[in-house]
Amino acid sequence: MWCYEKRLMLPINIKNKNPRLAKMILTQFGGYASELGAALRYLTMRYTMPTDEGKALLTDIGTEELAHIEMINTIVLQLTEGATVEELKAMGVESNYVEHGKNMFPVDSNGVPFSAKLFAVSGDPIVDLTENLAAEEKARIVYERLMDLTNDPDVLAPLSFLREREVIHYQRFGELLNKYNKMKNERLI
Amino acid sequence: MWCYEKRLMLPINIKNKNPRLAKMILTQFGGYASELGAALRYLTMRYTMPTDEGKALLTDIGTEELAHIEMINTIVLQLTEGATVEELKAMGVESNYVEHGKNMFPVDSNGVPFSAKLFAVSGDPIVDLTENLAAEEKARIVYERLMDLTNDPDVLAPLSFLREREVIHYQRFGELLNKYNKMKNERLI
Amino acid sequence: MWCYEKRLMLPINIKNKNPRLAKMILTQFGGYASELGAALRYLTMRYTMPTDEGKALLTDIGTEELAHIEMINTIVLQLTEGATVEELKAMGVESNYVEHGKNMFPVDSNGVPFSAKLFAVSGDPIVDLTENLAAEEKARIVYERLMDLTNDPDVLAPLSFLREREVIHYQRFGELLNKYNKMKNERLI
Amino acid sequence: MWCYEKRLMLPINIKNKNPRLAKMILTQFGGYASELGAALRYLTMRYTMPTDEGKALLTDIGTEELAHIEMINTIVLQLTEGATVEELKAMGVESNYVEHGKNMFPVDSNGVPFSAKLFAVSGDPIVDLTENLAAEEKARIVYERLMDLTNDPDVLAPLSFLREREVIHYQRFGELLNKYNKMKNERLI
Amino acid sequence: MWCYEKRLMLPINIKNKNPRLAKMILTQFGGYASELGAALRYLTMRYTMPTDEGKALLTDIGTEELAHIEMINTIVLQLTEGATVEELKAMGVESNYVEHGKNMFPVDSNGVPFSAKLFAVSGDPIVDLTENLAAEEKARIVYERLMDLTNDPDVLAPLSFLREREVIHYQRFGELLNKYNKMKNERLI
Amino acid sequence: MWCYEKRLMLPINIKNKNPRLAKMILTQFGGYASELGAALRYLTMRYTMPTDEGKALLTDIGTEELAHIEMINTIVLQLTEGATVEELKAMGVESNYVEHGKNMFPVDSNGVPFSAKLFAVSGDPIVDLTENLAAEEKARIVYERLMDLTNDPDVLAPLSFLREREVIHYQRFGELLNKYNKMKNERLI
Repeated sequence: MWCYEKRLMLPINIKNKNPRLAKMILTQFGGYASELGAALRYLTMRYTMPTDEGKALLTDIGTEELAHIEMINTIVLQLTEGATVEELKAMGVESNYVEHGKNMFPVDSNGVPFSAKLFAVSGDPIVDLTENLAAEEKARIVYERLMDLTNDPDVLAPLSFLREREVIHYQRFGELLNKYNKMKNERLI
Repeated sequence: MWCYEKRLMLPINIKNKNPRLAKMILTQFGGYASELGAALRYLTMRYTMPTDEGKALLTDIGTEELAHIEMINTIVLQLTEGATVEELKAMGVESNYVEHGKNMFPVDSNGVPFSAKLFAVSGDPIVDLTENLAAEEKARIVYERLMDLTNDPDVLAPLSFLREREVIHYQRFGELLNKYNKMKNERLI
Repeated sequence: MWCYEKRLMLPINIKNKNPRLAKMILTQFGGYASELGAALRYLTMRYTMPTDEGKALLTDIGTEELAHIEMINTIVLQLTEGATVEELKAMGVESNYVEHGKNMFPVDSNGVPFSAKLFAVSGDPIVDLTENLAAEEKARIVYERLMDLTNDPDVLAPLSFLREREVIHYQRFGELLNKYNKMKNERLI
Repeated sequence: MWCYEKRLMLPINIKNKNPRLAKMILTQFGGYASELGAALRYLTMRYTMPTDEGKALLTDIGTEELAHIEMINTIVLQLTEGATVEELKAMGVESNYVEHGKNMFPVDSNGVPFSAKLFAVSGDPIVDLTENLAAEEKARIVYERLMDLTNDPDVLAPLSFLREREVIHYQRFGELLNKYNKMKNERLI
Repeated sequence: MWCYEKRLMLPINIKNKNPRLAKMILTQFGGYASELGAALRYLTMRYTMPTDEGKALLTDIGTEELAHIEMINTIVLQLTEGATVEELKAMGVESNYVEHGKNMFPVDSNGVPFSAKLFAVSGDPIVDLTENLAAEEKARIVYERLMDLTNDPDVLAPLSFLREREVIHYQRFGELLNKYNKMKNERLI
Repeated sequence: MWCYEKRLMLPINIKNKNPRLAKMILTQFGGYASELGAALRYLTMRYTMPTDEGKALLTDIGTEELAHIEMINTIVLQLTEGATVEELKAMGVESNYVEHGKNMFPVDSNGVPFSAKLFAVSGDPIVDLTENLAAEEKARIVYERLMDLTNDPDVLAPLSFLREREVIHYQRFGELLNKYNKMKNERLI
């Protein structure tokens, strides 16, 4: 079970609104490389990791991804805060207002809702860790693309932080995969 | 952000395998009344609750639903544990083995993957709390149906607990809705 | 069975084209709070309402929602009528022309097609009427948002009428729910 | 708008339960050749039919398909009526009970929910009538397959009736298509 | 099995970028009338064609549709080539960059991913050929709409070629359907 | 463009029908690790591979996956051939007959249709090759699971062949990834 700690993993303080950018960033809530997909992937996969270390790593990273969702949501909220309906219309993003008012939803940058089809759990530890390497790489590149869309330092800071975390997760999953491949060769798993 | 506490919200100890029942119970992971849908619904909605009390209630219940997912997953795992491929075939549920091995996935009882289309976030507190009342009621009835499928006390105990939690959440959301309706009438929100 | 009466529930006469607004209004044909979802929800649910009164209410409102679909479609058609391809491109809504020409489709305001995942039928009258209260509230708020997007009185009139109908349906479903809750307490259903 | 007439298009009186067959027949509520898809297809398409005769034909057949939905639903209900949970489990169809109790949902024979992706509206009368010929043929063959699954005359009678209606609709759409092709050649549409 | 021949079915040489048009043309990769849907439809259907001639025709046209996918992809790439992020933003199409960088994906013109729900395979040759007539007509009209969006001759040439191929496929499927209808009347199939 | 060679990549000759197994094997046509997903993934990704060698490898393997689809389809057909409706009903797999007659469709082992959401194309060569490693691993494990379901040597032979091909593709993609990583470090790509 989880307990909630009332603070963001990294403080976010965006001063300039940009609802169009917010619409793009939403993809990290509900798109193919989203934090939601990552959290669900790892927290589900952990059950068939063959060692306690593996289960713990998946649980830890999955739990961290929940905190990333919260960061993404906060970025989106702050980028939209105070935008008038007229401003949303001028930017061609009034559909979010129609559907979710001042709030948001797990969708990609075109507004397509999140689906569990966007990630996979095979139940095999070697396969699943390889899936995770791909997942972290996909998240990394999408963060890089989002960073290309803006030069607002208040937005770049959390995006850069989140990008960096994906790189670290990639390394951690890689280490575990090496360990499991070795164990598999030795018929220990 | 969240921290993980390494224990289930309620201990689960199922001694008799029943993978067919497991397939049905999976719907509370990925179906229309699933704990996953509930967690996402509340943790997203909270941003437009107009009071700190509302934000906190949504966060608390959303966080609890994450623990419910974990309970559902554990029930499914224990009901499947040790089942041979021949047993799965005899019960007509070998598709889960094909797709996810000994693990699982957020699907409904027919194997249809979870979609964010299964829940709604309107961004209006009155509307969203009404949505939550319906969500809790839907979860309650699905738990009652699942309980109709078995008389194994090891399974009935956690299902009954989860059902009971939905009833309590329904009451809590109802109280907040009343408060917000009153505030709305007084033009405070 | 149904017979068709060749008139709109409310006459609609829009003089100024606005295909961008039309794209937004389409969500009431195919989005999460759509008239199509409402019609299907009620016309399916009615089978397990425990009294003739309940079956009749669900049938009546479900049938009315079919008329609302027709109104939404007419609004969308009139808002698009006579728009040239160049005008559609200038407004960023040429995708509807590509996909459906001068006609339309049940999609949300981002163009995502309607899915039955957007509504639920539990088969329990108490649960289903609670679902309906939420459905009517969601439809109401989306109409209010759509009304925020325009000050064209020709569009506001039918949107306001449709919004008002949702409020009335909410009341009717609430009355039936109270009746059923009372009957349930008296073990009559 | 529509008015409801409280009778089935054809009386249905099924005496022997068969919930497994019911699950298959559900596909005509929510599958690729479903009456729901047909109703939505025709009632949406009608707006861009170039003549009053065309608009009327699409409206009439679309309205009739609504009555067919009601027939399908009634068949499914009667085939399931009185089945115990144990009977449903023995037949491998307890998932419907879990999800919808004694009621039903627009799904295909595997339980996949209806989606508007299952039909198309192009906005061109020639194209759309060709789409309709295909739709009617698909519905016909699915009815023939369903009839292959049973020899219960109480079920065969309405299935046969519905199959026959698709043949007639096919002819009517074909006649209109010929007329429109002729008009198109003469540059009248 | 297939072998790849390293050339396009028709050379494509687009000199002027137009990423907004590219987004629209993507629908012929992943939309309801897409080349991908066509290829899958024909290459799957062929197994239940009752004659070698029928199997061969379906295989040939299905294989050609694979070449059409390649043409569509090339058009989209050339229309996007060299566009800066600023240009994409100015045109309101930066979402493709966010999701797929300089590459693309099978989606419709709103960015909704391809689904097999967009086509049907009934397993009956008469029905399936009727489905194909509708498919070719739908593809034809979408090409005509896309041609309405541009007057760039470099884009019009391949779109016009692809449109023309659909007309020819329509004729070929029609001839086979006539043959099969005749054979069916003579009880040969 | 492609040319069709009228032979299977590996001859398949299954003598004993087993439609239940066929339903499971269908997941390699339309499931998350399907040959269809693989073909689409590689044939789309190739456009942003930075070298001719990379483009060629992706094209080759993508083209081979098309041949694998054909092998899967043939296995499914032969496993179903001659099965009566009564046999299908006895095995609980009559839904395929209802939907597709003697033919098939790209679905997973639960009958859920293929969606492009099941694979990803990021447009970055490093990321995409990592995605491919995961894809090949997922396909490998699903083939191993399918092989666990049967001891029919006529079925095991092609499944084993297909599994082996995934291992080889994994190696080829890994080699290219290493090369690209090296080039990236040297700032050549």
